[in-house]
Amino acid sequence: MLSYAIGVDLGGTNLRVAAVDESGRMLEKLSSATDLLGGRDVVIDEMTQAIRSLLDKFRGRGVSRGVGIGVPGIIDMDTGMLRESPNLPGWSEFPVHAEIERRLGIPVMLENDANVAALGEKWLGAGKDHPSMCMLTLGTGVGGGIVLDGKIWHGLNGMAGELGHINVEPEGHACNCGSRGCVEQYASATAVVRMAREAIGNDLSQRLARAAEGAEFDSRHVYQLAMQGDTAAQEIFRRVGRALGIVLADVVNAFNLPIYVIGGGVASAWDAFAPSMMEEVRKRSFVYAATVPPGAQPAQPKKSTRIMMAQLGSEAGLYGAARLPLQRAKVK
Amino acid sequence: MLSYAIGVDLGGTNLRVAAVDESGRMLEKLSSATDLLGGRDVVIDEMTQAIRSLLDKFRGRGVSRGVGIGVPGIIDMDTGMLRESPNLPGWSEFPVHAEIERRLGIPVMLENDANVAALGEKWLGAGKDHPSMCMLTLGTGVGGGIVLDGKIWHGLNGMAGELGHINVEPEGHACNCGSRGCVEQYASATAVVRMAREAIGNDLSQRLARAAEGAEFDSRHVYQLAMQGDTAAQEIFRRVGRALGIVLADVVNAFNLPIYVIGGGVASAWDAFAPSMMEEVRKRSFVYAATVPPGAQPAQPKKSTRIMMAQLGSEAGLYGAARLPLQRAKVK
Repeated sequence: MLSYAIGVDLGGTNLRVAAVDESGRMLEKLSSATDLLGGRDVVIDEMTQAIRSLLDKFRGRGVSRGVGIGVPGIIDMDTGMLRESPNLPGWSEFPVHAEIERRLGIPVMLENDANVAALGEKWLGAGKDHPSMCMLTLGTGVGGGIVLDGKIWHGLNGMAGELGHINVEPEGHACNCGSRGCVEQYASATAVVRMAREAIGNDLSQRLARAAEGAEFDSRHVYQLAMQGDTAAQEIFRRVGRALGIVLADVVNAFNLPIYVIGGGVASAWDAFAPSMMEEVRKRSFVYAATVPPGAQPAQPKKSTRIMMAQLGSEAGLYGAARLPLQRAKVK
Repeated sequence: MLSYAIGVDLGGTNLRVAAVDESGRMLEKLSSATDLLGGRDVVIDEMTQAIRSLLDKFRGRGVSRGVGIGVPGIIDMDTGMLRESPNLPGWSEFPVHAEIERRLGIPVMLENDANVAALGEKWLGAGKDHPSMCMLTLGTGVGGGIVLDGKIWHGLNGMAGELGHINVEPEGHACNCGSRGCVEQYASATAVVRMAREAIGNDLSQRLARAAEGAEFDSRHVYQLAMQGDTAAQEIFRRVGRALGIVLADVVNAFNLPIYVIGGGVASAWDAFAPSMMEEVRKRSFVYAATVPPGAQPAQPKKSTRIMMAQLGSEAGLYGAARLPLQRAKVK
């Protein structure tokens, strides 16, 4: 008998709903543009309809272990409310969790999107051979997720893993969180575009300036120019790598985990930022340096620290969301 | 029947050995100056003799649950060797663990000193009402210990909790670890003295200059002058507080624990550094700000983040070391 769960990835751009079985096979996926302009109720309607249609489809063919939903915001684990969600305006201070359960008539599990992405990579991706891992998701912002001994580490209020707000420059660029110099200000897609506009303002690259005239100018254009040898664009990714390296060194020194994974859209610019990132980590974390001797293969590969790109791309969150109820079912 | 364990705190200055019962009562304590000049074998001799004398004394009166030893250095959990220990020259790359067990003829548990201090505070001190906590120990260096769900978090190689090397100033003062601007360079007793000498070099305080003429000039003199209103000394502790605040904000954002404890000798200068520390944490960690509303008591005190001074002083490590075998006995 098929044992499966429904995973939902509610993004600012796309709403995706999938049925995933307990071996990690995706049975079916529904995808649509998130109708944010239609408002909260429209989005929740669409989501619950998609969930119901998949549950109906597999009824009689398998047992549903539940529904897991990844949401771009911080979830108060006690009340099921969103604390803040810049990508879902109008959703905060609203009992999302209760409302979805009421409409579906079954329990659902809500989780921060960076946490479900980490859980997905842990289950089926880069972290699958390791008990614990940490993931940084480089998107509009920088999200973080920490999985310890197979489970998302939530901390006291479900707010753990906010690695995007670890400091890399005490008097650096102002951050929405109220601090200055958070890694999010140097390694998100938004930061790459901001740094590109700064470079253009300083007249550092004609090619960047031309690219920025397009309406759809984004971090991918900066990456392409870096790969084509534009030094201003290369310098931007060097800064991305430096910021990531400082944060990784902090996190390696604090957690000493076997694996750290970089995901999200900006992670595809790995070639451009990885060299400076790895240089900073080695210089700044003696825990990293002690576990990964330079050059040669480590004497004990299983005891060495790995830093690598995520493997599941944009599907990580969908798999991780489905994993939530499957994992709970297994523990019982 | 009495159930107890032996705890050992092997410091660079003092060797202390105690019998502690499972309720946390100290039954007896032996203390001596650590004869580092006598060399490794002399120190291990003294330690094992003290342990044996306590075991002999309580034989017939109780059951020993084992021996726990806190050591100032990073312990390779697989081999029982010290990886590095600036305070115990000649001890690294030596099988400390095996040698102590051989001499005693019974199993012992070895643990990093900052980790046992955290475990002691968790058991009987500032953290006793909380499942998880983090401790920073401000001494010659800055040590860290992380206790999650009652147990020391070791990470992959036993090197987790190296919070003294979290970055607070990317291009700051060079650190022994190879990085620059680690919190250890701004919040250790050594750093306080260095900053005092820098202030004296810049002719900022006559009183600091006079105090520094004494052979025993240390961070406590700087604290006394700060309390007496010396602005240069006050500025030094403002920098201590700022560095601690940046690290705490990072750690709060990453772990979201219920309590963070500051211990070690420099912690007694709490009055001088706490104001700037708390200001930085509130500004830099939205997780902290969200869980501790300004001014008023939090709505849910059990769900708020606490930052406080350690309670056990220099005994924390001794209690924590004894806790190691007691905790293991309980789990079985």
